[in-house]
Amino acid sequence: MRATVMYSAGDVRIANVPDPKIIEPTDAVIRVTRACVCGSDLWPYQKMERNEAGRVMGHEAIGTVEDVGADVRAIKRGDFVIMPFAFSDGTCVFCHDGLQTSCLHGGFFGTIDVAGAQAEAVRIPLADGTLFPLRTHVDDVLMASLLTLSDVMGTGYHAAVISRVTPGKSAAVVGDGAVGLCGVIAAKRLGAEQIIILGRRADRIALAKDFGATDVVSERGDAAVERVRELTGDQGVHSVLECVGLEQAMHTAISIARPGGAVGRVGVPQERTIPGSEPAFYNNVMVGGGVAPVRAYIEELLPDVLEGKIEPGRVFDRSVTLDGVPDGYRAMNDREAIKVMVTP
Amino acid sequence: MRATVMYSAGDVRIANVPDPKIIEPTDAVIRVTRACVCGSDLWPYQKMERNEAGRVMGHEAIGTVEDVGADVRAIKRGDFVIMPFAFSDGTCVFCHDGLQTSCLHGGFFGTIDVAGAQAEAVRIPLADGTLFPLRTHVDDVLMASLLTLSDVMGTGYHAAVISRVTPGKSAAVVGDGAVGLCGVIAAKRLGAEQIIILGRRADRIALAKDFGATDVVSERGDAAVERVRELTGDQGVHSVLECVGLEQAMHTAISIARPGGAVGRVGVPQERTIPGSEPAFYNNVMVGGGVAPVRAYIEELLPDVLEGKIEPGRVFDRSVTLDGVPDGYRAMNDREAIKVMVTP
Repeated sequence: MRATVMYSAGDVRIANVPDPKIIEPTDAVIRVTRACVCGSDLWPYQKMERNEAGRVMGHEAIGTVEDVGADVRAIKRGDFVIMPFAFSDGTCVFCHDGLQTSCLHGGFFGTIDVAGAQAEAVRIPLADGTLFPLRTHVDDVLMASLLTLSDVMGTGYHAAVISRVTPGKSAAVVGDGAVGLCGVIAAKRLGAEQIIILGRRADRIALAKDFGATDVVSERGDAAVERVRELTGDQGVHSVLECVGLEQAMHTAISIARPGGAVGRVGVPQERTIPGSEPAFYNNVMVGGGVAPVRAYIEELLPDVLEGKIEPGRVFDRSVTLDGVPDGYRAMNDREAIKVMVTP
Repeated sequence: MRATVMYSAGDVRIANVPDPKIIEPTDAVIRVTRACVCGSDLWPYQKMERNEAGRVMGHEAIGTVEDVGADVRAIKRGDFVIMPFAFSDGTCVFCHDGLQTSCLHGGFFGTIDVAGAQAEAVRIPLADGTLFPLRTHVDDVLMASLLTLSDVMGTGYHAAVISRVTPGKSAAVVGDGAVGLCGVIAAKRLGAEQIIILGRRADRIALAKDFGATDVVSERGDAAVERVRELTGDQGVHSVLECVGLEQAMHTAISIARPGGAVGRVGVPQERTIPGSEPAFYNNVMVGGGVAPVRAYIEELLPDVLEGKIEPGRVFDRSVTLDGVPDGYRAMNDREAIKVMVTP
């Protein structure tokens, strides 16, 4: 089959790879109907060292089950499913806690070891625990939003939950990428009264406002902190959704939090330390979050997607076939596109 | 009057200073009956640059109210009071939230600007919001434990609350100083089933066991992490109380937390960054805490102290008069004493 393979930073190609097949009796194979390129795919796109075998990319997909192993019970051939970016057994102590990304037997798609979903098909380990089947008819117009439940919408939601977004309180979203935009949806859904988006690109800001952002801060660094303070009676915000992962973004996030506030971080950290130890300490600002257990959030978010109450699929502003994926990486990396959807 | 003045690292002397007096109408002056030396006093004892005017030290005290300003309402002359280490108005938005250490008009005792309590008497700004009066007879044997409510017991409790100590779950306390030992009391009080103390000094470990520690880890660094994993079925602990403030201690704290767990830090940070950004992120470990709003915890902890259910005063293993304070600093710095009580 054809799949997206990354060989090194900047070197993404569509290649022929062996068809995925059942290896373990708990596996399934799905035919991918929609996949996409993630902001986190841009980190290896910028940094990956050359690997001749390559890495089959992609960790977000929806699709149809083509085959299941002998021990798969909950998932059937023909099921239409959402594939969260992590696979998980659904039964271990961490899955039981709703932290499927720490599953004792789990792992991640689109890594060196486990092939990804920017491809015609993908093997799903631990299919029963991993896949979320939808057994009602789903209108085609909803596919983009359903696809976001495999990562970005759940990730933005995680940032909002961890930063304790509360009805009537204030929230700020650091980062206007697809996750940040989904963070705005999440903050709105959880009842934040004031939602400040920190970003500066007109198309993204317009979308953020549509999603519920009440204020825009286009400054950066100290000027951004100053502006957020002005917008919050000099107190800072209750909840900060850190959706970038760079040191400067985290520093800003901690600096704009109100004393006793919380930062929910979902941007993949690019440094070994968290800045702002002292302001976080003296202001009792909590820093939490991490790899989002999106599997845990699908059940909660799905009805809103199906009813059209939230439209996270609007973060996709470009759609390509497999052949268009390499240029999709380039477009996202150049900030030409917010997020690229792939129809293999 | 006589007071403890620090002029530079290692240079602590008892000096004659002007008697404290009412400056603002919201002030009180208390005669100090008990004060003490704090682990956090050792940071300036190790690092303070020379200041010829000096700094009147001490931020923990109990005492009797000698004088009150014209606008003081809740506190009366003759009241026996607990003085939390921060002063606060008790009325601002942060005091209302129980975060008195972020009071909009508050501050801290024993700084360059506000004289401290290792002295015969001390001026209390914002007396109504700051002081906690006790209007029942208190047996002399309880004084040491009451004194801990001005800082260490409330600080250890803050670490336990922030790290979400939960009945039946596991907790670890990093640091066997007075705050760590109070952290053990706090974890026990909040119902932790397994309480692991990380420390290595025999007298402190013995006290930790008396306070409820179920396991002792005397290793350090990676070996400590390994040992905690062995003690917790390779999963780590739900709650970590970080009671040191050094980079290595925080790194250990994050490394021994279970995925989805929490670190409550109360050790004054000695670095500008928090280590362990990546393990915290990949394991969804929350890092929270900071300067403890001990004023908020007095009401909750006081009945247990008065009934003898908790005995945090046992952390004092040396008692001195004012003349003995300089040697008390030395003894704590040399780890000869856990915590030194001062009877001026």
